[in-house]
Amino acid sequence: MTAKIPDTMRASILLSQDTLTIEERTVPTPDRDQVLVRVAAVGVCGSDVHFFREGRLGDFVVNNPLVLGHELSGRIVAVGSDVDSNRVGQRVAIEPQRPCAQCQECRTGRYNLCKKMEFFATPSIDGAFAEYVTIQDAFAHAIPDSMSDEAAAMLEPLSVAIASVRKAGVTPGSSILIAGAGPIGIITAQTARAFGAKDIIVTDLIEEKRERALKFGATRVIDPVATSIESLDLDVEAFIDASGSPRAVDSGIRALRPAGTAVLVGLGNSTMTLPVEQIQNLELNVTGIFRYTDTWPTAIHLVSSGQVDLDSLVTGKFDLDHVREALDSDLDPTSLKSIVYP
Amino acid sequence: MTAKIPDTMRASILLSQDTLTIEERTVPTPDRDQVLVRVAAVGVCGSDVHFFREGRLGDFVVNNPLVLGHELSGRIVAVGSDVDSNRVGQRVAIEPQRPCAQCQECRTGRYNLCKKMEFFATPSIDGAFAEYVTIQDAFAHAIPDSMSDEAAAMLEPLSVAIASVRKAGVTPGSSILIAGAGPIGIITAQTARAFGAKDIIVTDLIEEKRERALKFGATRVIDPVATSIESLDLDVEAFIDASGSPRAVDSGIRALRPAGTAVLVGLGNSTMTLPVEQIQNLELNVTGIFRYTDTWPTAIHLVSSGQVDLDSLVTGKFDLDHVREALDSDLDPTSLKSIVYP
Amino acid sequence: MTAKIPDTMRASILLSQDTLTIEERTVPTPDRDQVLVRVAAVGVCGSDVHFFREGRLGDFVVNNPLVLGHELSGRIVAVGSDVDSNRVGQRVAIEPQRPCAQCQECRTGRYNLCKKMEFFATPSIDGAFAEYVTIQDAFAHAIPDSMSDEAAAMLEPLSVAIASVRKAGVTPGSSILIAGAGPIGIITAQTARAFGAKDIIVTDLIEEKRERALKFGATRVIDPVATSIESLDLDVEAFIDASGSPRAVDSGIRALRPAGTAVLVGLGNSTMTLPVEQIQNLELNVTGIFRYTDTWPTAIHLVSSGQVDLDSLVTGKFDLDHVREALDSDLDPTSLKSIVYP
Amino acid sequence: MTAKIPDTMRASILLSQDTLTIEERTVPTPDRDQVLVRVAAVGVCGSDVHFFREGRLGDFVVNNPLVLGHELSGRIVAVGSDVDSNRVGQRVAIEPQRPCAQCQECRTGRYNLCKKMEFFATPSIDGAFAEYVTIQDAFAHAIPDSMSDEAAAMLEPLSVAIASVRKAGVTPGSSILIAGAGPIGIITAQTARAFGAKDIIVTDLIEEKRERALKFGATRVIDPVATSIESLDLDVEAFIDASGSPRAVDSGIRALRPAGTAVLVGLGNSTMTLPVEQIQNLELNVTGIFRYTDTWPTAIHLVSSGQVDLDSLVTGKFDLDHVREALDSDLDPTSLKSIVYP
Repeated sequence: MTAKIPDTMRASILLSQDTLTIEERTVPTPDRDQVLVRVAAVGVCGSDVHFFREGRLGDFVVNNPLVLGHELSGRIVAVGSDVDSNRVGQRVAIEPQRPCAQCQECRTGRYNLCKKMEFFATPSIDGAFAEYVTIQDAFAHAIPDSMSDEAAAMLEPLSVAIASVRKAGVTPGSSILIAGAGPIGIITAQTARAFGAKDIIVTDLIEEKRERALKFGATRVIDPVATSIESLDLDVEAFIDASGSPRAVDSGIRALRPAGTAVLVGLGNSTMTLPVEQIQNLELNVTGIFRYTDTWPTAIHLVSSGQVDLDSLVTGKFDLDHVREALDSDLDPTSLKSIVYP
Repeated sequence: MTAKIPDTMRASILLSQDTLTIEERTVPTPDRDQVLVRVAAVGVCGSDVHFFREGRLGDFVVNNPLVLGHELSGRIVAVGSDVDSNRVGQRVAIEPQRPCAQCQECRTGRYNLCKKMEFFATPSIDGAFAEYVTIQDAFAHAIPDSMSDEAAAMLEPLSVAIASVRKAGVTPGSSILIAGAGPIGIITAQTARAFGAKDIIVTDLIEEKRERALKFGATRVIDPVATSIESLDLDVEAFIDASGSPRAVDSGIRALRPAGTAVLVGLGNSTMTLPVEQIQNLELNVTGIFRYTDTWPTAIHLVSSGQVDLDSLVTGKFDLDHVREALDSDLDPTSLKSIVYP
Repeated sequence: MTAKIPDTMRASILLSQDTLTIEERTVPTPDRDQVLVRVAAVGVCGSDVHFFREGRLGDFVVNNPLVLGHELSGRIVAVGSDVDSNRVGQRVAIEPQRPCAQCQECRTGRYNLCKKMEFFATPSIDGAFAEYVTIQDAFAHAIPDSMSDEAAAMLEPLSVAIASVRKAGVTPGSSILIAGAGPIGIITAQTARAFGAKDIIVTDLIEEKRERALKFGATRVIDPVATSIESLDLDVEAFIDASGSPRAVDSGIRALRPAGTAVLVGLGNSTMTLPVEQIQNLELNVTGIFRYTDTWPTAIHLVSSGQVDLDSLVTGKFDLDHVREALDSDLDPTSLKSIVYP
Repeated sequence: MTAKIPDTMRASILLSQDTLTIEERTVPTPDRDQVLVRVAAVGVCGSDVHFFREGRLGDFVVNNPLVLGHELSGRIVAVGSDVDSNRVGQRVAIEPQRPCAQCQECRTGRYNLCKKMEFFATPSIDGAFAEYVTIQDAFAHAIPDSMSDEAAAMLEPLSVAIASVRKAGVTPGSSILIAGAGPIGIITAQTARAFGAKDIIVTDLIEEKRERALKFGATRVIDPVATSIESLDLDVEAFIDASGSPRAVDSGIRALRPAGTAVLVGLGNSTMTLPVEQIQNLELNVTGIFRYTDTWPTAIHLVSSGQVDLDSLVTGKFDLDHVREALDSDLDPTSLKSIVYP
């Protein structure tokens, strides 16, 4: 079980906006409380594409060479001195964040909001388009043999969906509206179903995406151009935006029943015009999620029990020499999720 | 203790926008589960002023004659057949709402959001600028002898403050920002102090109001024109807007620490531009309050224990023939709260 | 759709401990806010058996003739003046309680704890072993055509299970221990599965009941005599007792992980010896449920979506002349749920 | 500000049950993330007395020499490499625990329940009856100049009270029953007052202690021998046991109103007979607390704002050579809190 670990490894490097290269880099050494992972599969996320095309995302700017990729799985090949050595050989899904574990946010269970967070593939922390990475022992989550490398990598976007659905308060019998049938919308629909939602209404501008949503948990799909959402008087308990569209956000909030919750997940403009009078009169809650805490165990359960299907979302596979093609695959509207194999 | 109840009573009627008159009306008869109250004091609220000046407030329009006034106290003079007759003679503060008690909102503890709500002084439900009113037994809250009629009437705006401070999650040691030092802002500052807030920062454009805030619970006041709120890096756990100003709302939300809560109380435009990226990145909660549930017992305790001072807020006193003057008293910037004695 | 309503009806009456008779009684008239229901099916509950055999249950004593039965379904045949007349003809499941709708418990969403509650088949409120009953409009829940009368009646014990599983905090991925594989235990196991529980461990002394539990949601069953629960180091997040056995309660609480919750549903002794040091050191929560609030909509969804199977639990069917046999059917260990058809 | 740090220090050592000695020990060196503190004052806690007199407390046994004392304040004299060196010279109150910061409990905000916890003065972790201790940077909480060393040390029992009052859900207007007027009971009464409780009822067998409780927050005191608690029909929302007495726990739980919460703080027998039927019928919550999380900032605020008075609780002062006398001071019934100055 002890694979020989080389001294150097190949990594795909984003030198600057639109400029990728392959470099030979030193294989990292795990700290006391870390494991070294041979990366198996890495999903491509919209944020990777932003860094690649625009050299930035919000306040984060690529000023120095950066390894992209933060949805990943692999196998532990070495462990730090404080880690159980029996973990060597274990297949794992990686929670790609390193909170400080000391600040008030970390101490009170909100480590995702840690101001000293080191998050994979966010300047200046390198990501996973490389053969090896290190991560804290507790954030390398063991997966069952039955789970594919690809599904294990996609536990990361599933974690986003779980965090959203939890915050939206979805329970058995809930009704929920989801705007956007991209990867996050599709996974969120499946997650809402697993949490027991009765009505899972998904909106998208593109018919093909709406059709796909019906296969992945949606109980009803709506074309928001053809049909005014307001006119439907939906009265849902929860709205999750996975579109980033101001219009979708406005009509989604207006679709909520009294005391309903809107969770804004999709990234869009830094400000939006929201229906404040509606928020006040119905005591609605509008919030967002920023990554996740404590989601991998639930994610592993949802996939291994067959309640969430991630494997069927894969539409493209690329090696480390074709990261550019992987990042550009969203230009094809039939693409849903691309996987890179370092 | 059995005062003779006349057949008719005087009431101040808003016939239409800007048109008030006095009418002689039949004294109402309490239903089985109601009490009849001889009104002692009625506070003037901004919503009364809106109906008077503009003939409307949001979606509510004065199409028929309406009695204004929903902040009130008085004395029970008769009771319905199901009510304990010992209540006759009792001094009470009135919770001026009649929820249906049957719908899902009512059954789940959110009766303020009941869609069949009958709320005092909201078209087409008459309010309290009249000698007598009826209200459900459970919503006529007994007050101690030590409490003045005026303070008892103002338990209504205090209830707004309690609902806000509860929803903002204020607990001992909290830091809170309050925008607006009008009646609601001032009462909210006192309430936040009673809930244990450590830092109570109040903003207002007017120096005199800021000075007053310091006497009523504020630990710090800020002129938002002279000082940019953002520049202060306040990092508060809660923000309560009692101004309705889009600029105050924007900067208040930006002043929140991670996972902080904004409660929008002040009425303003039906839509506002909000800092969505901030809401997402810090997982902020933005919500509003719509009236209140289960606040009078707490309000009575806060006032009778001396933790909240309402009597000192009264700046004008008017009889039923001077309701116009009472409604116009806000034109004087030194005015804070006017009381009408029907 | 307007069945002719007779003036009188047959009802099974518990005159006193162990003494049943059939009486001809006046068909009740619905109040303003009530509906009149022709009863279709009534499940037999353990509490009915207690009243029958012992003439009492806890503090409730049968001092006057009482109609038993509180798990029921039927069809609306008439409505009070405030109720939508279109409801006549509708098939309904009955939530068999009439809270006062005015007290603090009712106003704050805990109407099950209303001290003025009138609950079916609890002295001195008559139940449903009769041809007709009245109930508040809001508590006659419409059911789909696909749902059988028997399943609709059993939404009542399903409501107990839903209240328990909610209070236990079961969410996707949870692990839960359930003591007792009688009707409540079996329905609770199914409900926990519908709420997403990963590990559903059921204990029972009787092998046949354990086998049945495996068919209805249990992922593992344990004979607590053959295997010490403590020795298994279960580390579950929730424990629901549906046995009333002191030993099961003690070992169930000890099986909880830090901050876990125990919900005591089974009725047993009025006091029990509990592991207080464990409750303190692990900050466990021990609580109970008393009936339910706001569960029927969820229950209807769980059954009509096929997530909970109630029909298969029926093991005996009786008419109104054989209520004694229905109440005695628990003497047969293979019996699970008996239904009476008035 | 850089006091010279010696190589060795004096420490009071519990060699075994009832056997204390003074040893000269090496001054510890702070880890990367730790500070070195010159201890100023240490409160004596009941758990110290248990270890001294019985050589054990629950499952914890003194098998090796142990330094007692876990309520402490001091001044930072050196810092680890990752800590801001400006902290040297700062006066601090110590949160005397070192959670692992990695396990599920730590990640979800319940670090007090960490199974790898190293807690001061609990075998085999040394405490603070010594001149110097080390602690994690984040757990050395800066205190204002106005706070005495003694009060700063007693922020530890105040933290127990804050954790209890939070868990009991005390808010403005609450009614609470506290059993036991020892140090924890007295501090809990003050804390409940600071959290806004209206009725603070304290029971104790000893008149002198009841009198003292009235000076420290109690609004009413009861001798539970002279007056049966049940007979009073107290109907309180919260009960906190600080007595460990089975009888007090039983009657306290029975005094709760529907949905009320009992928090068991006092240590007593490992099992107790509890009124389970009452817990079920009123849906009461029974729980305990195990130490605290995130309480020092609140504690510092409560003391420095004058809402909680700790200084007046000190009834005895001892140097390191008189630790035995400090531990025995509870034999004097007028004693409340002893302080050791290492």
